[in-house]
Amino acid sequence: MELKEPLMIIKIGGNVLDHHEDTIDFLQKLIKYPNRKILVHGGGKIATDLSARLGIETRMVDGRRITDFETLKIATMVYAGWTNKSLVAHLQSMEVNALGLSGADLNLIQANKRENRDIDYGWVGDVARVYVKRWAFLLENGVLPVLCAITHDNKGHLLNTNADTIASELAIALSTKYPVQLIYCFEKKGVMLDQNDEDSVLTRLDRERFLKLKDQGIISKGMIPKLENAFKASSKGLNDVYICAAQDIDRFQSTGTQICQSPLLSSTH
Amino acid sequence: MELKEPLMIIKIGGNVLDHHEDTIDFLQKLIKYPNRKILVHGGGKIATDLSARLGIETRMVDGRRITDFETLKIATMVYAGWTNKSLVAHLQSMEVNALGLSGADLNLIQANKRENRDIDYGWVGDVARVYVKRWAFLLENGVLPVLCAITHDNKGHLLNTNADTIASELAIALSTKYPVQLIYCFEKKGVMLDQNDEDSVLTRLDRERFLKLKDQGIISKGMIPKLENAFKASSKGLNDVYICAAQDIDRFQSTGTQICQSPLLSSTH
Repeated sequence: MELKEPLMIIKIGGNVLDHHEDTIDFLQKLIKYPNRKILVHGGGKIATDLSARLGIETRMVDGRRITDFETLKIATMVYAGWTNKSLVAHLQSMEVNALGLSGADLNLIQANKRENRDIDYGWVGDVARVYVKRWAFLLENGVLPVLCAITHDNKGHLLNTNADTIASELAIALSTKYPVQLIYCFEKKGVMLDQNDEDSVLTRLDRERFLKLKDQGIISKGMIPKLENAFKASSKGLNDVYICAAQDIDRFQSTGTQICQSPLLSSTH
Repeated sequence: MELKEPLMIIKIGGNVLDHHEDTIDFLQKLIKYPNRKILVHGGGKIATDLSARLGIETRMVDGRRITDFETLKIATMVYAGWTNKSLVAHLQSMEVNALGLSGADLNLIQANKRENRDIDYGWVGDVARVYVKRWAFLLENGVLPVLCAITHDNKGHLLNTNADTIASELAIALSTKYPVQLIYCFEKKGVMLDQNDEDSVLTRLDRERFLKLKDQGIISKGMIPKLENAFKASSKGLNDVYICAAQDIDRFQSTGTQICQSPLLSSTH
């Protein structure tokens, strides 16, 4: 690996993007880091609201959203259109050379349409290939890529892809070229033992304890796939994987939860 | 000016984009040219249909569309989202290194919000600056930029901008660095003396004759601003400005209408 300053890959969640002032606050704190960065974003409520206004039902099977063609269109319109370009316009106004992207652009992230004998998930993709050279081309030219969670199959089809997974896969692929920090930002302080107590944020979380907390129902719902993505990156040798609040992006190492393989040092802040 | 192969700037209209097979046919013909290219696209019916489904009225004042915030959101979602990324995915499947862009990305096209004492046009922008160096950076690295008609004011606001005007301003700005061919593709063969007779396509059209045909009502409606944009580019020294059918992009010089300043050579094919 070439020795370089860390590359920060930051996933920003929908709840933050839904609030204009929170988004601006987050971006202003983020750009203070002189490091190379990639911002990965999800969608937020706009897609859900738009679907509702258009009378398109969200179909779920076994807790998984089904992406029919209408839903794919809405996801692409909202994520790659409004959300992505709004973030880019804000960053440009802060004199940051942002470039909005989907996985189709420059063939940066190729995915396979999910095949499943029992359930047709529709236009959903699982990351198949990250084009490291082209990411490096952008980063080495001072560009801040802003990536939405839409990929393509290189056969002309766009695919809806989980943003947490994209961040993790991107981090794993780019760690062959850069020391990568992977940071999941959302509305909570980190992984909390008690959802009502902000002081219960874990400083570190290893896989063994994660499985235990999951069994106990202390870690549940959307937090589970997020952590599984974080642990996947960690298992591939990434030591700097964090979960933190978007508003704490300027001090994520001292406030959030670090995801690690080793069970030795788990504790609260 | 450096001596280089021509840069083709192709504007593709909504009517073509509304039909999947026409779009594919157009792209397949286009990519046969080995030249550097920039594809500029408008929106098509999707934005109008989406507005209608959401119950958002299209407000017109003096024949001009007013872009309120809801309309800007829809335009950005459709143009920068679905239309742009679909074109990119198709081009990538044809092994062309396409990159979808708005004017906000890399600060490629900055615009000023239109100020008018009498009419508030809303979130509409007039092109203020084309960042030539960054366009050249993309072109020199083998990228085919696919640009939608959304720009920004560099203060964090996206702006709806006329796609024909963007193509013209881009052609004028980049002609300082490349010999530029500017080609407006739409559903008709070119500028026709009789809308019902495809053999009446003008081979060439100069400004004097344009004004005459406009006075006679032979050239009317949406064709007028399109031609004004074409003549603006021509007046800045661009000799290769054409209006042609999208399906004739592989032979636009022999089938379309060339826009020229000189009144000498106007004739039909």
